[in-house]
Amino acid sequence: MGENTIVPSIVVYVTVPNREAGRKLAESIIKEKLAACVNIVPGIESLYRWQGEIHQDSEELLIIKTREPLLEALTEHVRANHEYEVPEVIALPIKGGSLKYLEWLKNSTRD
Amino acid sequence: MGENTIVPSIVVYVTVPNREAGRKLAESIIKEKLAACVNIVPGIESLYRWQGEIHQDSEELLIIKTREPLLEALTEHVRANHEYEVPEVIALPIKGGSLKYLEWLKNSTRD
Amino acid sequence: MGENTIVPSIVVYVTVPNREAGRKLAESIIKEKLAACVNIVPGIESLYRWQGEIHQDSEELLIIKTREPLLEALTEHVRANHEYEVPEVIALPIKGGSLKYLEWLKNSTRD
Repeated sequence: MGENTIVPSIVVYVTVPNREAGRKLAESIIKEKLAACVNIVPGIESLYRWQGEIHQDSEELLIIKTREPLLEALTEHVRANHEYEVPEVIALPIKGGSLKYLEWLKNSTRD
Repeated sequence: MGENTIVPSIVVYVTVPNREAGRKLAESIIKEKLAACVNIVPGIESLYRWQGEIHQDSEELLIIKTREPLLEALTEHVRANHEYEVPEVIALPIKGGSLKYLEWLKNSTRD
Repeated sequence: MGENTIVPSIVVYVTVPNREAGRKLAESIIKEKLAACVNIVPGIESLYRWQGEIHQDSEELLIIKTREPLLEALTEHVRANHEYEVPEVIALPIKGGSLKYLEWLKNSTRD
């Protein structure tokens, strides 16, 4: 299988209010090499509790693929470029997959 | 970074047959404080094997964000409020992200 | 709770250029018992870096549920049946959920 040349990688979920905000945030994340790829999932309906009330909003979901060591910088970037007071930024560990893809992910992101 | 005040958290996938069933289940989950937030992803096409045959159905996907210790109660709640004989309930570990978000998740869910 | 009869399981993400390609790949994966279930998520907009340029494409996302030991065979199957040079195949660990569902997942996949 050859020497493992990939880095610990993660999938990060961030929800945004609409396509425009999602695209703008995704472009800035890729430009800054904070992630290799962002998928924008349309037409999300979100239910959540905020200050004791249940809310129902339309959102879009960004599925971001990046290196684990970039999570803090990515979280700070989202915080600084998002209209919500407390934007969702949650990371899921990638535990394997196509080594060629994970190699590409590594080469498309900052050290 | 301050004392880690968050709790082990998870993303849980549950598929449902349609929007109405999805919304009803999501609302009950939030009301019971079994999760802080539920995203409903529309227009899913599902292919699966059931009793030896390959089936193709339209579904919606609930992406549920909650505390890990609530997984068993959430699984039981889904089982009791879902029309499928064996509903999908699978949990993915959240390994980090925005501490403010994870704090909000903790405060929006039961102990 | 009875003896844990389930196997380590994973959620695998694979992106595809369109519904036709997604359906064909999903059917072949289920037929080969390389997974128990595939959800196709429509209308994805993907932004990514390829050979130094930022690209924006329409895609669909396959969310595949299978056993962890099948990841290598699934990755090879995707590589051999996908039009991309480097298709995305990334695995997220399932850490719990409905035992009945996970039992069904095990029985719907190859050993």
